[in-house]
Amino acid sequence: MLTRIFPFLTWSRNYQRSDLTNDLIAAAVVTIMLIPQGMAYAMLAGLPPQAGLYGAIVPLLLYAAFGSSRALAVGPVAVVALMTAAAAGTVAEIGGPDYHLAALWLALLSGAMMLVMGLFRLGFIANFLSHPVISGFITAAGILIAASQLRHLLGADVSGKTLPQVVPSLIASLGDISVLTVALSAAVLGFLFWSRAGLAKLLQKLGMSAPLAKLLGKGALLVAVVASTLAVWGLGLDKMGVAILGDVPRGLPEFGLPAFDLNLITLLLAPALLIAIVGYVESISIAQTLAAKKREAIDPDRELIALGLANLGAGTSNAMPVTGGLSRSIVNYDAGAATPAAGAMTAISIAAALLLLTPLMYFLPRATLAAIIIVAVLSLLDFRALPRIWAYSKADGAAMAATMLVTLLVGVEQGLLAGVGLSLLLYLNRTSRPHMAVVGQVPGTEHFRNVARHRVVTDPKVFSVRVDESLYFPNARALEVRIVRALHETPDLEHVVLQCTAVNYIDASALESLEAINERLSAAGVKFHLSEVKGPVMDRLQRVHFLDELNGQVFLTQFDAMSRLSPELTQGCAQAERCETLIE
Amino acid sequence: MLTRIFPFLTWSRNYQRSDLTNDLIAAAVVTIMLIPQGMAYAMLAGLPPQAGLYGAIVPLLLYAAFGSSRALAVGPVAVVALMTAAAAGTVAEIGGPDYHLAALWLALLSGAMMLVMGLFRLGFIANFLSHPVISGFITAAGILIAASQLRHLLGADVSGKTLPQVVPSLIASLGDISVLTVALSAAVLGFLFWSRAGLAKLLQKLGMSAPLAKLLGKGALLVAVVASTLAVWGLGLDKMGVAILGDVPRGLPEFGLPAFDLNLITLLLAPALLIAIVGYVESISIAQTLAAKKREAIDPDRELIALGLANLGAGTSNAMPVTGGLSRSIVNYDAGAATPAAGAMTAISIAAALLLLTPLMYFLPRATLAAIIIVAVLSLLDFRALPRIWAYSKADGAAMAATMLVTLLVGVEQGLLAGVGLSLLLYLNRTSRPHMAVVGQVPGTEHFRNVARHRVVTDPKVFSVRVDESLYFPNARALEVRIVRALHETPDLEHVVLQCTAVNYIDASALESLEAINERLSAAGVKFHLSEVKGPVMDRLQRVHFLDELNGQVFLTQFDAMSRLSPELTQGCAQAERCETLIE
Repeated sequence: MLTRIFPFLTWSRNYQRSDLTNDLIAAAVVTIMLIPQGMAYAMLAGLPPQAGLYGAIVPLLLYAAFGSSRALAVGPVAVVALMTAAAAGTVAEIGGPDYHLAALWLALLSGAMMLVMGLFRLGFIANFLSHPVISGFITAAGILIAASQLRHLLGADVSGKTLPQVVPSLIASLGDISVLTVALSAAVLGFLFWSRAGLAKLLQKLGMSAPLAKLLGKGALLVAVVASTLAVWGLGLDKMGVAILGDVPRGLPEFGLPAFDLNLITLLLAPALLIAIVGYVESISIAQTLAAKKREAIDPDRELIALGLANLGAGTSNAMPVTGGLSRSIVNYDAGAATPAAGAMTAISIAAALLLLTPLMYFLPRATLAAIIIVAVLSLLDFRALPRIWAYSKADGAAMAATMLVTLLVGVEQGLLAGVGLSLLLYLNRTSRPHMAVVGQVPGTEHFRNVARHRVVTDPKVFSVRVDESLYFPNARALEVRIVRALHETPDLEHVVLQCTAVNYIDASALESLEAINERLSAAGVKFHLSEVKGPVMDRLQRVHFLDELNGQVFLTQFDAMSRLSPELTQGCAQAERCETLIE
Repeated sequence: MLTRIFPFLTWSRNYQRSDLTNDLIAAAVVTIMLIPQGMAYAMLAGLPPQAGLYGAIVPLLLYAAFGSSRALAVGPVAVVALMTAAAAGTVAEIGGPDYHLAALWLALLSGAMMLVMGLFRLGFIANFLSHPVISGFITAAGILIAASQLRHLLGADVSGKTLPQVVPSLIASLGDISVLTVALSAAVLGFLFWSRAGLAKLLQKLGMSAPLAKLLGKGALLVAVVASTLAVWGLGLDKMGVAILGDVPRGLPEFGLPAFDLNLITLLLAPALLIAIVGYVESISIAQTLAAKKREAIDPDRELIALGLANLGAGTSNAMPVTGGLSRSIVNYDAGAATPAAGAMTAISIAAALLLLTPLMYFLPRATLAAIIIVAVLSLLDFRALPRIWAYSKADGAAMAATMLVTLLVGVEQGLLAGVGLSLLLYLNRTSRPHMAVVGQVPGTEHFRNVARHRVVTDPKVFSVRVDESLYFPNARALEVRIVRALHETPDLEHVVLQCTAVNYIDASALESLEAINERLSAAGVKFHLSEVKGPVMDRLQRVHFLDELNGQVFLTQFDAMSRLSPELTQGCAQAERCETLIE
């Protein structure tokens, strides 16, 4: 019982010295990435740099205690940071007093929503997001993130949240570009791109083992940060127009609930839900991929609870919304993280950095952080997905294209909602036309098959139709329409038989459709029968006296139905040779 | 071709003298109901009384030309009038200059949406509304409509759009009640209730034939209107606190597009969509019920086009949103309306009334119109539906209860959206757990069945699972989770076989799930196979090279798959007797 609530009781029992070594190495590598990334994503979210570092302390400790993934690295991530900026920006001025308050409430609300979804096993809500929508959204978000960093990369006042805002602003401020800043950005970007493959190779040439070289290659971020900070400090670039980070408050975050503002909270409910769902989907797919490599299982509801608590921790420790991040999780896994303790150790290192290193960050150029964001975000962009998905399915391609276009042109939340709305519409369109087959008897057998595909015999007085799906509100009307059409087309009709072989469930809407069909057929003097109704479906129908109102009968099998309603046909068909004439 | 666009070309060709008589009688009866109801529903919508009468001219002519139902009576109806009031009230002050403008744009927008839905065959959008949601919504709307008429029935200043607003307002204004108005209301209400059954009986006793008595019974509305108007005029009740209708402008409506206001239009888009969908659902179910009685068919897309044009007509003729109304359609049908020409004749009678009778309406008491609304609305209330639906299905009952509560307590649009959202969520919850069966071989046969239900043999190295549904984004993750769990639970696993017998479609999300499963199984050294893949599904999979990436094979049948992957098992099972030992 206790281990169900606190998963760390399971793994901590068998914790070995080798686990400790592995976890420590992983924590060290992740910390080196996390310090600049945390500050960069805070900047992306429009928050002070320390908010990103705070987001890597309490949330990591809570995830280590409650999470089920051994490799997932939780903390500030780019897409959630962008969504935070979009949502907080609509309710408060960036840099204003309410802006960070809004970000904290976004963390608290999305955390509470994740927690509730996890406790009540509502993780299926994430199924609203189809793969094409999430993939299109993340690529479009990546483009917006890159665009938002132009101001730092160029040292010019480029602003705007969507492409139609950014592009004119970029053109207008081309004259104000700081050449020194651009040079610095280019140097850092060039180094980071080269180091993605080149650094590890160089280290290997210098005699290091391949895995060690690969790990140390991740130190490129640290090299870029240290080198560019030293350059600014040594050459006094900050006095020549290169924007620097400035004071980062030393010490641990303050804890406590942020100021309560009902109006603000109401406005943030919808964006918080989107952040909760996107954060969860991103995180769970990373966790599941990494777990599968070790044949381990991830419990989605437990993950929701752990991510929810992590965000509640973020909201009460002056941080920002967090979730599992792709690049750091892969690094964590590759570095050999053995247990979630690696995350806790990362948190402690970040806390130590906050206590000791913040004065050294004063001269860190913002352009370096922007370059780090750009490099991280490039891995999100997948321009080949759209043509691939379009080729596979036009409907999915359309949902993806709509998500991307609306995100880029109108905004992040609108894009996500447009994608979800359109994919639900397309799904509903497809599902509202269930497969229905008019059936006839296979001569000489007791089998009934689709008249369009098989050589079968039918009786013009009896219309037998099989629905190959459960009957739900999205498809309830379709059956009504089909039977009314049959009524209209068949002047001699006396009986309608609904073969329910594939019907596992009939919801209240479909029940009313059946009642309406019964009523309409009665009005036209036609009997309505059911055949092959499954047990649980039958129980439910009996509960509401539908069967008493039914003007026809319920038959165990379709053959029973036809034997009673059209004995000439079934008897004739018993001998296959006589049947040939019936087929005419 | 022409008859497809103008359905009236079909019926007008065979138009006979008897049709003319029937249509004229029906038009006369409907006109008598429509004059007071039209003005009453305009009052309900917060519009001047003539808006309701205008709504019974151009829209009826357009529906007669383009509609496919012979009995549907289009015009102002209660629920749509309430929705109009709710939407217009959020963007303009009732009685203010923009209020009627908002109502006209609601008609134009919802008309345009219906037209587009009809032309592009998007009628399935109405499937978003499940029966329990629409039924709960209409009952709750009926209660709100009745509450909104309290001010006219009591002659006191009772205001508010939701129960939490109306109830305190009612209590506060109890002291201001006009006794004369209450007496008048009670008299009219009493007469109308009695006349629903009593009047026809009385007329029969006076020697009339039953059908004629029933028809003339519908004249009770006219009697109430005339008698109460005469009472007010004769006794000078208007000077004693009884509110009267006042001037109704004489003559036909002015035509033309209302003033264009982009801001207003943007705000009205969402409510217009709700009005379009509710109006369509209400109308189509009436039309289909009446058509079924004569074995006629209704074309839903054609109905959307006709209702769309009717609303565009309403928006350009100073009227209000319209749709097919239940009570008038039944009266129209019972009175023997033979063709849509009855609707056109009704329109002409209403136009004549506007030219000739408006001065006589000056002293018509508002309480009479309110009483007419109350009587009409009582037929909408169905309090027994909730317990009945709850007994049948908790999920549907919950959606219905949520719709009713939110409508009554928060508002009309919110209630509808809450119901749609909740029923979609519950549907998605159910559909996100597709039926999956782990299958094994039935000894001595080539058949494979659910291991949980049949005595079958399996090989611990091979995990065979059958999904009994198409693979879509709502259920895509479920398969992934199931297979990852099997991987976790079965240490000896070497092969996973997905039996696709029931899979008619795989969308892009499910394709990515299959790719993820393939990747995860590969990472764990397990082969992933498919069996019994249908032709069209196979074609699609080939288009995206999924089959090249698949680390296993595609087998024609499940038996082929097992013969290859577990020859010991299938060969052993060929002889049923040997199989018994395998089952252990």
